[in-house]
Formats: sequence, structure tokens, C-alpha cells
Amino acid sequence: MSQDDGAEDPWPMDEPVNQSIPIVLPITDEQKASIIKGDKVQSRVALTQNDVVLAILCDGEIYDHRREERVARQFAFSDPRHPAVQQVLSSGPWCLGGDLKVLQRITFDDGLNDFRKTPSELRQIFKEKGADVVFVFQLRNPIHNGHALLMRDTREKLLEKYRNPMLLLHPLGGWTKDDDVPLSVRIRQHEAVIAEGVLDPSWTVLSIFPSPMLYAGPTEVQWHARARIAAGVHTYIVGRDPAGIQHPDTGDFLYEPTHGAKVLSMAPGLSQLHVLPFRVAASGGTPPDGFMAPTAWKILADYYKSKASK
Amino acid sequence: MSQDDGAEDPWPMDEPVNQSIPIVLPITDEQKASIIKGDKVQSRVALTQNDVVLAILCDGEIYDHRREERVARQFAFSDPRHPAVQQVLSSGPWCLGGDLKVLQRITFDDGLNDFRKTPSELRQIFKEKGADVVFVFQLRNPIHNGHALLMRDTREKLLEKYRNPMLLLHPLGGWTKDDDVPLSVRIRQHEAVIAEGVLDPSWTVLSIFPSPMLYAGPTEVQWHARARIAAGVHTYIVGRDPAGIQHPDTGDFLYEPTHGAKVLSMAPGLSQLHVLPFRVAASGGTPPDGFMAPTAWKILADYYKSKASK
Repeated sequence: MSQDDGAEDPWPMDEPVNQSIPIVLPITDEQKASIIKGDKVQSRVALTQNDVVLAILCDGEIYDHRREERVARQFAFSDPRHPAVQQVLSSGPWCLGGDLKVLQRITFDDGLNDFRKTPSELRQIFKEKGADVVFVFQLRNPIHNGHALLMRDTREKLLEKYRNPMLLLHPLGGWTKDDDVPLSVRIRQHEAVIAEGVLDPSWTVLSIFPSPMLYAGPTEVQWHARARIAAGVHTYIVGRDPAGIQHPDTGDFLYEPTHGAKVLSMAPGLSQLHVLPFRVAASGGTPPDGFMAPTAWKILADYYKSKASK
Repeated sequence: MSQDDGAEDPWPMDEPVNQSIPIVLPITDEQKASIIKGDKVQSRVALTQNDVVLAILCDGEIYDHRREERVARQFAFSDPRHPAVQQVLSSGPWCLGGDLKVLQRITFDDGLNDFRKTPSELRQIFKEKGADVVFVFQLRNPIHNGHALLMRDTREKLLEKYRNPMLLLHPLGGWTKDDDVPLSVRIRQHEAVIAEGVLDPSWTVLSIFPSPMLYAGPTEVQWHARARIAAGVHTYIVGRDPAGIQHPDTGDFLYEPTHGAKVLSMAPGLSQLHVLPFRVAASGGTPPDGFMAPTAWKILADYYKSKASK
């Protein structure tokens, strides 16, 4: 089992790190009380899931979880009808921080662990396959032919300058809204798209991006881009309204749909990333026939059929 | 009349510019209609105040003033009981941008124009006086002896490394809350503090910082710091709860009072600034006798007396 020790992370630490999305551990009053000894956090705190100890937190510190401030700054929106705003507002009033020792690789009981590559593993794969540039497609939906054209077209463009551009097809694998297609269905759909050759398996690597979906728009897309740099990505394809969501009152875009791409081109710490907006990438050629590769479509159709019959 | 042409601004433009506070011109539907010709903004738009044309805006562009998003991101708070939030929410639904040609120096009819120095003028003054380092004190209140000690103590500390540290005493001169002391009273109070020698006139330059007060806490303090770099400042004294305000429900700090100083030490683009938190600066010595220099106190007492008699 190969572990990500972070040693090879090509992120230049003399630049400010762009961490637009806080990654924090909110805890409740009860959890706080259970780990305090005297007036300090116990020297070692076990982090468990389903009674399995996954990590040890040392030198713990507890601080206020300023939830209202956090949602305003992170989402530019404080309405709990936004599902991720609601998650933050209903989480514990404290945050626990410290030095983490992760004891084992994080796995899930969903048969998809082979697709969970660490950033180091991805860089190793691209090295072995002789990639001289890597472009990434962030997605949380099934791949239709418009997407596929975009990725193929991006590769054509990169071939003008590079010998072997490779695609990191990187579906988001954490929490998504209930009406989004589940991860396992999406992975099978993506596999079918590759098996049919709509995306060439010789230059495509399918892996799961473990982040939850936060629907934080321009703030979140910076995290999506920054995280991929750690996996060796040089070119980030960004679409209209990335990480977007509808306004619960109007049904209109909550975020201005062009702000995501704009902010990527201006955010400190992302200057080494080549940002490719959709419209540029898709400027040439016509989509392959049909809406979606047939076997890929069947996987989706079966999913919707089974959902309807429930 | 010396104009600020920006040519000498020592801000290194290869670093991202930290502009945490948007400086925008909101316009109403009526104003928008009046400057549109066909489907474009007229090539030259006059910006007036009291019927005097102060500037010409060329290559104008109109865009949505996303007021709810702006207040959430800028203030981390959307409640209109916050006075600056209220100002933004009640301003026009559009913003007008473009290239500005300022026709004349901005003056006010308050007898204080001599205190309105441009960044270039301030740098020139510090050069003429042979300052080898400049420290700034941002304030919107009268100077009491604790403040004065802090500034004197800061100078003592800087004298360990520099020959002639000079103080930019830089009271905020734009809009403030109604219950803050008015600018003209504060300027006279500051002059009295200098005249009494509590702050030595040989190393103190009193000038007005033209910004309005936005009470945006950690977001705003970055602007306060960045703006002073343009005036040649190297050392920024930051206190507890800078640019803070009370939460309208609880009366408690709206912003976490230590976040301002923390964010200054981490914000991209401010790394060239030496940030000096209050507690460090005030570590030695005892305050001068009394709460405030006597003549300075008289100015304030007269102001409050006249206010009470109204």
C-alpha cells in the first residue's frame, strides 16, 4: 500500500497557499467535554468512524466555530436552504485542530477503492505513462458527448505544445445533493465512456476526487484547482458556473456564472495553473453523434428506472 | 498644487495587489439610463458633486452590483443594522467602472484641506525630513495617553534599528458612525496632542486618510494597511478588534478581536509590511500622567458640551 507522504508535492511553499475552503473538524459541546483534561485538550485524541480508529490527533487546540461568519465568507450566502450552508450551521459550535497521524488508508465499503488514488499515486501513474502535461476535468455529473468533445479538443490543443498530454478524469466522490447521480453509477458510466473509446484509455486516468461538494461557486473552484495541482495537474478546464447552485428563491444562478473562471485567473497562488475556460476549449470540431456513448447511457437509464420504481 | 500621478508608488506589481475592500461606484436605474447611448455607455461620462465636474470616466462599463453577495463576502454579515451593510444594500443595483481622469484635486469645505496629503506628497515629506522608516497609526478616535505611549514606545523600538523613525498620524477622514467624534474635532485634538509635545512634532506628520469607515473588521484592516504602503509606510501598528463594531443583537464584538492582526500577518501581498500588534508595542514604560493631554482634553470636552446643549 503506497501512502501519500506529501514529500513530492510540487506546490511551491514560498507562494501563499490558496486554501479557499476551510477543512475543519467541528465538535459538539459533549465531544469537547470528553476530550478536555483540566483546561487542555488531552495529548492524544482518537478520531474514529464506525468504532474504527482512523487517526490520532496530537497537540489539540479547540477554538470557536464561527459558523455565521464562516458561511457568509465561504458561500456569500447565509440561507440554510443552501444544503452546505445548512450543514455548517447545524454542525458543532467548536472546531478541533492539531497534528494528525493517519493510521490507515481511508477506504469505503463501496467497491470503488481502486479508484481512490492519492496525489502521489496519481503523479506516479502519470510519470510511468510518460505524460509531459496533465489536464483535469472536475465533474459531478455523467459525461455526455459535449464534455467528451471538450476533453478530446483540449488534448488536441495541448498536442501543439506537448508530446503526451494525459487527462485526469476526476469525479467528485464526497457528499453531493440527493438529486445528483450517485458516485457508483457515475463511475460505471465513466468506465463505459472510456471502454467505448469516446475517451481514449491510453491517455485517460479515472480517479475519485475525495472532496464533498459544497456548492460554494467561485470560492470552491479555487479549492478544486489547488487540490489538483498537488496531483501534478497543469491545465484546469473550467466551465460555466463551476460548483454552482440555484438560488432557492429565484431558481437563478446563485453565483455569477463567469466568476468562477475569472477568479481562477486572478487568485493568488494559482498562477502556475493553466486555466482553460470551456468556450475556448470547445471552439473546434463537432460533438460525436448522439448525446452519450450508448453503453454509458444504458447505465444511467437503468439507474433512473430503478429509482423510479422505488 | 502637487498631484499624485502614481508613478512613485512603491507597491511591487509583480505581487498580487491586496484590495480586500471593493472601491466601486454604484448607480441607480435612472443614472444607468442617462448614460447609455444605444447599447453602450457614452464614451465620456462626467462625475460631478454639487454640480462641479470632478472627473471624466472613459471606456465605461456597467455591471451588476451584487449587493447581497458583496455584503456577505466583505462584512461576513448581512444584517442591515450594520451601518455600512445598510449603505451597500441601499445603494444602486449597478456599478459603473472605467478609466478615470480626475480634473482637480478633491477638496472639502471644512478648512482641513492642508491635512489632505496624497501618498506621493507624504513620501516626499518623509524624504525631506530624512525618515529612514515610517510607522503609521490608523485611528478614528481622539488620542488618549495610552495611544500616545504606544506610538512613542514604537519609535523607541524602531530606534534600535533605524536612525530616524517617523510617525504618520493618519486619522480616518471619510464617513464614520454618527456617535463617533467628528473629523474637525479630532484633528484639533490631534494638533493639541502634538503642540503639547506628547507626540513630538519633529517626528510626527498629521494627515487625513480619506477612506470612509466601513466597520468590516479583518477584511477592512487589510485595506488600511495596503493603502498606507502606498504612502511609504513600513510598520503598521494594529490593535485589538481593528475596524470592528458591536454585534447588534449581543453587543459583543462582531469580529473575533484578534483576527485583524492575524490576517495582516498572513494576507497575500502584505508581506513587505512590518505588523506590530498593540500588546508588543506597549510592553515597556508607563503612560504619561492623566488620561489625555490637557489642551487636547479641553477640545473634546467643549465638543461634548456643545453637543449636549443642542
